[in-house]
Parts: sequence; C-alpha cells; structure tokens
Amino acid sequence: MELLFIEWLLLLLHQEVMSEGDMKGKVFIFPQESATAYVSLIPRVHKPLQNFTLCLKAFTDLSRSYSLFSYNTRTQENALLLFVKKVGVYELYIGNSWVTFNAPPSPYSPVHVCTSWESASGIAELWVNGKLLGRKGVRKGYTVGLDAKIILGQEQDSFGGKFDIAQSLVGEIWDVTLWDHVLPLKDMCDSCYSGNILNWQDLTYEENGYVVTKPKV
Amino acid sequence: MELLFIEWLLLLLHQEVMSEGDMKGKVFIFPQESATAYVSLIPRVHKPLQNFTLCLKAFTDLSRSYSLFSYNTRTQENALLLFVKKVGVYELYIGNSWVTFNAPPSPYSPVHVCTSWESASGIAELWVNGKLLGRKGVRKGYTVGLDAKIILGQEQDSFGGKFDIAQSLVGEIWDVTLWDHVLPLKDMCDSCYSGNILNWQDLTYEENGYVVTKPKV
Amino acid sequence: MELLFIEWLLLLLHQEVMSEGDMKGKVFIFPQESATAYVSLIPRVHKPLQNFTLCLKAFTDLSRSYSLFSYNTRTQENALLLFVKKVGVYELYIGNSWVTFNAPPSPYSPVHVCTSWESASGIAELWVNGKLLGRKGVRKGYTVGLDAKIILGQEQDSFGGKFDIAQSLVGEIWDVTLWDHVLPLKDMCDSCYSGNILNWQDLTYEENGYVVTKPKV
Amino acid sequence: MELLFIEWLLLLLHQEVMSEGDMKGKVFIFPQESATAYVSLIPRVHKPLQNFTLCLKAFTDLSRSYSLFSYNTRTQENALLLFVKKVGVYELYIGNSWVTFNAPPSPYSPVHVCTSWESASGIAELWVNGKLLGRKGVRKGYTVGLDAKIILGQEQDSFGGKFDIAQSLVGEIWDVTLWDHVLPLKDMCDSCYSGNILNWQDLTYEENGYVVTKPKV
Amino acid sequence: MELLFIEWLLLLLHQEVMSEGDMKGKVFIFPQESATAYVSLIPRVHKPLQNFTLCLKAFTDLSRSYSLFSYNTRTQENALLLFVKKVGVYELYIGNSWVTFNAPPSPYSPVHVCTSWESASGIAELWVNGKLLGRKGVRKGYTVGLDAKIILGQEQDSFGGKFDIAQSLVGEIWDVTLWDHVLPLKDMCDSCYSGNILNWQDLTYEENGYVVTKPKV
Repeated sequence: MELLFIEWLLLLLHQEVMSEGDMKGKVFIFPQESATAYVSLIPRVHKPLQNFTLCLKAFTDLSRSYSLFSYNTRTQENALLLFVKKVGVYELYIGNSWVTFNAPPSPYSPVHVCTSWESASGIAELWVNGKLLGRKGVRKGYTVGLDAKIILGQEQDSFGGKFDIAQSLVGEIWDVTLWDHVLPLKDMCDSCYSGNILNWQDLTYEENGYVVTKPKV
Repeated sequence: MELLFIEWLLLLLHQEVMSEGDMKGKVFIFPQESATAYVSLIPRVHKPLQNFTLCLKAFTDLSRSYSLFSYNTRTQENALLLFVKKVGVYELYIGNSWVTFNAPPSPYSPVHVCTSWESASGIAELWVNGKLLGRKGVRKGYTVGLDAKIILGQEQDSFGGKFDIAQSLVGEIWDVTLWDHVLPLKDMCDSCYSGNILNWQDLTYEENGYVVTKPKV
Repeated sequence: MELLFIEWLLLLLHQEVMSEGDMKGKVFIFPQESATAYVSLIPRVHKPLQNFTLCLKAFTDLSRSYSLFSYNTRTQENALLLFVKKVGVYELYIGNSWVTFNAPPSPYSPVHVCTSWESASGIAELWVNGKLLGRKGVRKGYTVGLDAKIILGQEQDSFGGKFDIAQSLVGEIWDVTLWDHVLPLKDMCDSCYSGNILNWQDLTYEENGYVVTKPKV
Repeated sequence: MELLFIEWLLLLLHQEVMSEGDMKGKVFIFPQESATAYVSLIPRVHKPLQNFTLCLKAFTDLSRSYSLFSYNTRTQENALLLFVKKVGVYELYIGNSWVTFNAPPSPYSPVHVCTSWESASGIAELWVNGKLLGRKGVRKGYTVGLDAKIILGQEQDSFGGKFDIAQSLVGEIWDVTLWDHVLPLKDMCDSCYSGNILNWQDLTYEENGYVVTKPKV
Repeated sequence: MELLFIEWLLLLLHQEVMSEGDMKGKVFIFPQESATAYVSLIPRVHKPLQNFTLCLKAFTDLSRSYSLFSYNTRTQENALLLFVKKVGVYELYIGNSWVTFNAPPSPYSPVHVCTSWESASGIAELWVNGKLLGRKGVRKGYTVGLDAKIILGQEQDSFGGKFDIAQSLVGEIWDVTLWDHVLPLKDMCDSCYSGNILNWQDLTYEENGYVVTKPKV
C-alpha cells in the first residue's frame, strides 16, 4: 500500500500536460544538458511496422553521442533508434541491431535527416541534406512492435526511461515525421510533415523537464 | 583621514573626461596589451534586466581569451559578460553562470556579434555575422541587477576593477548597442544602433588609459 | 562415394536461380559484410582476352580493401582483378601482376571507374569519373585466359571461391560492362552498357547469399 | 695613415654607380642568398618623420625571416623597419619597438604591403593586398630621425651595414614608395608611386653586389 | 680483344632504331620503374648555350625524386638538368649548380613546365602552368657546353649513362622543346613546339628499353 501511494505521488510530480496541435514553424529546444528533459510523441495509430520512413531536422553543436529519435517497445529496446555516434556518424537501430552511415561534416548548420527501412529486404537508407549516404541491410524479416514509447531529447535504456545524460540532445529538433511505408526520398519535399504515424502539423506530445518551444529560425 | 586623502588623490589621477556624442562611423582602438586601458559606457537608463539584446562589432587578431563586454553590478560579478574563450568559442555569462557557443573561424575579418537573453525561458541566443550559433538555457528566472559598471577592453573581476591583462582586448570595437528587450535577430539590420540602454549614436562614455578613437575602416 | 554425396548436397544448398535480363537503372546492393554474398556474371562469349575495356559504377563507404571485379580462370588467380587497396588507391591485376593508380578522394559519392589494357604494349589505363589517372605497363604480351569465373562482391582466392570477408564489397555496384577491345575512354559516354562480353542491358547472372536488387538512386 | 689608405681601397672596391630614373614596370631581383647584395635608396628630402606611409610589392618563396624595408639613422637602429618574421607574420619597428600583424597566407603570389604610422596617437596600420590587418600602437610621441640609410634586400644591424645573411631577401621587390604623411589606405590606388620621400617613378638608388634589374612580370 | 668483342655484342643488344618525325599529339610513356627505359633526343644544332628556354609537359603520380630533362656534356655532369626533388619542388641545374623553385601542388593533373636561363645575369625563371614561381640566380657567366647527351626518363650520372632507378620517370612526357634564347614566358602559347634546338614537330630521337608512344589524352 505504501509503495503504491509513493508511486502515485511520483506520478503526480512527473505528470505533464499533454499537448496537441500544429507545430509548423516551431521547434523543441533542449536548452541544457540533462537526463530529465524530453518530449514524448504520441503516435496517431498503433500498429506494428514492417516498413517506415522517418524524417526530422535538428541543430546542435554537440561533438559527443546523442539520440535523435528513440522508439522503444515494452519488449524490445532500441526497436527503432536514430543515433549520432559522433559528428557525421549516424547509427540506425532496428530491433537492437544497427547499421552505420558516414556523412560529410556540416558544422554550424541545421541538418535534415531522413531514413527508411523495409523488412522484406532489410534495406535501410539514410539521407542527409538530400544526399543518400548508403543502403545497408539490417534485421531482414523483422517487425518493429507496436505499443511504443517515442522520445525526443533522450535515449531510452528501458521502456520510457533510464536516460543517460551523456546521450541527451542539447539543441533543437523539429519537423519530426513518421510514415508506415517507404517513401522515395530522392524527390522528398523539404516540407512534407503529414506522416500517418507522426504528423508535425497535428502532433500530440508531452513536454517533460526543461524543454522550450520557440519559432524556428 | 589619511586614507581618504590618498583615495582622493588617486581619484584625481585616474579622472578622465566624460564624453558624450554620436560615435557613428567611429571605433575604439585598444592599441596595446594592458590592464589599464578601457572604456566605461554609461547606460541611458538604470533598470534591472529580465530581457536584453546586445550587439557589437570587433576586430582583433588575439588567439587568447578576451572580454568583449563586461557588465558587473555591485553585488554580482559577471552579471552580463560576453567573453571569447579562444578563437571561435564564445561564452555568455548571466549572473555568473555561462553557456558556450561555437563559431566557425573567420580570421583576419571583423566580426558582428549579437546576443539576446530572456529570463522567462532562460533562452540565450548568439549570432555571429548574421548566423545563429545556437539557443541555450542559462539562469532561467534570473534578473540582471541595475547600478552596473559597463566596461569595454577589460574584464572586471570586481565592481569596476581588478582587470586581468591576459583577458584584455587588443584591437577595435564599435557599434556597441544594448536594448532591454529581445529583438528578432534574424532580420537584424546591420546598422541599428539606437538601443534604449546603450546607443552608439548617442553614447556617454569615459576613456581610460591608452585608448584611441578613429574612423572605422 | 560419401564425399561425392556431400559435394552434391552442398551444390544443392548453394544452387541459385540463374537470371537474365535488362539491368538498366538497377543496382546490386551488398547490404552487409559477409564472405557469402556475391553475384556471378556469365560472359556472353568465351574467349581469351588480349585487349579489354571494363567499366562499372560503385558506391561504398568502406575504408578498407575491397574487390570491384574479380575474374579468375581455372589456371590463373587474379587473371583480371580490379581492386581498391584503400580509399583512392586502385590496383589493376593482369595475370596476377598489378599496377597501382592514385585517385583524388571523392567520399560520399558514387564513383565511375573505367579501365582498359592491351597486351601488345602492356599499357593499362585507369579512369575515375572521366579523369585519366595514368597509363602504366603490366604483363606485356600476356593473354587473359578463357573459361572464367566473374564475381562481384567478393575477391576470389581460388577458382570461384575462397572469399575473404575482409575484401568483400559492402555497398552498391551497377553498369558493369566488359568489352574485348580497347575503347577511347576520353569520349566515353556515361551510359554505354553494350559490352560484347558483359552487357548491363542484357545480363546473365546468379545472385548468391544476401544480395538485393534495387533501382539506382 | 695605413688604415685610412685601406679604408680608401675598400671604398673603391665597394663603390657603385648611383642611378637615377623612372623604375616604373621594373623590379629589383635579389637572385641569391647573400649578405652583400642590397640596394640603397636615397630620399628626395631629408626630414624627421612624425607620420609616414610606406608601400611596396614583393615576391619571394622564403619561409625564414627577411627584411622588406630597413631605415636606420646614425643614432637609432631599426628606426623604421618592415620585417617578415615568418610567412604571414609582419613586424613593423618604429624606434626599435615593434608591433606584430598576422596576414592570411598567400603563397606563390606577389604581395602588396602598405603600412602607415602617426606619432600623435602611436597608431600603426598594416594592409596586405588591400586588406587591413590591424591598427596597433607603437612609440606614441616618437620622431623617426633624419639622415637615414634606407636599404632594400638586407636588414641593417648598424648604420648602413652589419647585414645578416639569415635576414636577407631572396626574391623581387618593386613599387617602393614613402610619404611623410598618413594616407587613407582603404582607397589606395594600386599604382600610386609618387611618394614625396621615395618615388618609384623618379628614384635615386645604388645597387650593391648581385642585384639584377628586370621588367616586372 | 675479348673485351672489345663483348662491348661490340653489348652495343648490338642495346642498339635501337633512330626515329625522326612529327610527334605532335603524341607522348612518350615510361610504363614501369626501371633504370633501362629512356629516350635520347638528338639536337637539331650543336652549339654552346648562353641562353635557353626549355618547355615540356609531363604527367606522373610519383612522390619521389625524378628527372624531367637531363642534358650532360662529356665534361660536365648536370650541365642542364630539370629535376623534381619531391612533389612541388623543382630544381634547375646549370653547370652542376642549382636553384630551387616551389610550386603549388597540382596532383592528378598534367603539368606544363617552362624554364629559361640567361648567362649574362645568371637569372633562371621557372613557370608552372603559366605561373611564374620565381627568378633566381645561378652560374652567372657560365656557358652550357655543346656535344650533349639529352635524355628523357632517366637522370644521367655520367655522359649518357649511369642511371639511377630511384630517379627514373614513371609516367608520360610530351611537347619537349628547347630554344637557344630566352622567350617571354608570360605570353607563352600553349602549343609552340618549334624550338630551334629541339622541335616536337620535327624530332629526332631514339627509344631505349620499355618506352611506349601513344596519343596524348
């Protein structure tokens, strides 16, 4: 009984207002290094993924590792994780396996990242600023589970928690969009946000800790 | 009594003429490394700051640390300090805490720096040559006190004094302007000097030591 | 008898469907590092070569050694091998002797490689992205034997086998074309695939292991 | 008596023809490293200098120190010396004190250098290829004495002599011009040679040692 | 007697056909590193040289030393030698003395080199790809003797022999032209081959060892 009561108190303390709306022209800023600031994104539909396309834009001056997009399920860590190992080295995790892509350095500038994956062939693509960095194979035949926690700003080492300050994002992130199919990224428009799973123009999200919403520059 | 007399003598020795006028097209040159040359800027209004925008232009070939703008209050060191840690690394201090911004190197060229801060979100921006270097959080909720000493050319380690020659500016500085609100820096005009706290076209200042005023090049 | 039976079983296990058709606009992707994924190309005619021109396009982010085109005969290892020693260093083997060519680095971009050789002079040329890297002498008077195994994705250390994972290609390869004569490469068109020995628009090939065919980007 | 005779002999040996005329389109070449080759420039007027502007063009591939313009008086070494400490590092000496300026590297190209100094403020400017490298303070209030030895090609460690081969110029120098006032260097024309102290179009000079006069390229 | 017979045999073995004709659009390729491959050029007139201009084009990926043009007389080694010490460092020898010129790196590209020398001033010029690298003094008053062995591909350490494989050229050379006077190299046309001593359009030469003549690319 006592434990339950404490858990209920902690829940209250951590409870944040769920927001919903058009984020067009807005960014999430993670203004300081922390293991507590993050944004939860609520998917529009809950479904297992055998294909997906994920796009986002980010701006940071970090030279260490950080997470751009962390999608965990109850049973699978790093079910879908877009991670920057160090400047210019991207890792895409599917079902806790990963492929690495090397990008030319573009310091002091925002970066536009798109990645897609199809289970049938296992082929993952990564595009940075409209340029294909490679097509590599990972987790052919796998299905990314439903019932996910989707986190910006932190990398989940468990389901929705166990954040590592050394992998937190300090900087800005926006135009985060997720589709349940593979898009032809070569002709990808710069401002297509209407993903059927995550849609930047109709986003349900929850800010936690020191997160600031500002117009993009 | 004796001490007071000596203090009065020292005051006389250090007394400089207070100047007032339009500095448009002019720069302060700090021609040599010293712990004695500086310019005091007298604010047009005395008020606590919960928001501000600071712009200035500078030219130097220093590769060591130096202060660009040092604003101390009687009770708070580094209340507002714009500091260059080394080439391309800017530090903005608010209430003696700081955030760091990394700029691309632009040697042999003047630099146009603008920075702003708002207390409500703690967000500080730094722009160099019209390019945003980042938005970071510092001292959310803080108020920069009034009754300040504002010093160009030296970094104050006490209220109006305790200069460190190793942090002095050798070079030129001009178009120094301070507002008590946050300006949208993206569309910042290159020649807007009419800050309501410091206005380069109607500046009250006091030169001390080896400082030379010359037309800008 | 037993050994023969095992060999027959292995043959069955490794048997793949022979494909034939127009590969125009398509690439072979080797999505993962392995010693098992490769593509066998079946020449349109079987003849000894005293002259040849070989062109191909490839995209990889490997920084280690890898094979681009491995052509072995029953009696001669590295009869015709186009090998990348490290980034920007190409080796052309003729009859197991080789010449080295140095190319300017072009990271993050596909590369268009053409090479030719004539037995009479021994002169081998290597062109990368339309630029001649040199003309050097190797195996003057030699004849590249017929009855060849032509392998993409792996480097043969025996006739059709003994692959070294550390020399495998991870990436994409396309427009692989082989002629039995020396073409003037200066005016080489970017899309001439009708080699009389290997023709990308009418290719007979056999995929083995984890190989994916996709449209080129 | 004997010594006087020897001195007279040495004088004869070293005697060179004094030349006068229009050097427009011509350069002095110092073809080899030596401590003996130099050109003496004879000023048009003899007067103390409280302000000056000096311009010249030079071409060299030296990476060590060398003198560009050495102006000594009987009583003051390095009264006015323009010296290259190493590639891209200029030193301007006034009355044996100096200031340092850092220039961007421009190897394999001629360099156009202008420098000015005013005694009242002590401010020295250095311009390289039309770009201001800085304004720094040196010897405020000083007067550069008259009765000078002006030497190209060597650095004087005494009045008109004591040359150090390790500071000699190997290369070409031309369009050397000296004014007794400060010119606005921003709008400096590329071909203004009519200095009132040294005028390249009406120059009196004396070549010593291995010096060659050639058209400029 | 025996020795003479052996010498006669060696002479026979080394005897090559003397060729004559228009080399326009053709190059000599030295396809492999050797101490045996070279081309002897036969001058159109035999005369001592007090002035000369030498132009040639070359393409190599060597990073070690190599000879571009070796002209020895019976009595003087390195009478006229154009030598590359390492990438971008040219040495011009006159009468076994030399001057050094530093060129910007231009890897993976052919290089167009012109050099001239006049005995009266000792001034040697070196131009690479139409850019003057310097004018320096060497062997003022010297005369390059007649009765020369002129060798491409090897550096002579004696009269017509004693080649060092470590100084051999591997690559291509063409448009080699020699005049007995100094040409104004600034306005040098790219295709002037009619030297009065060596003329690429009417060349007498002798190929030795593994040398291949091919059209230039």
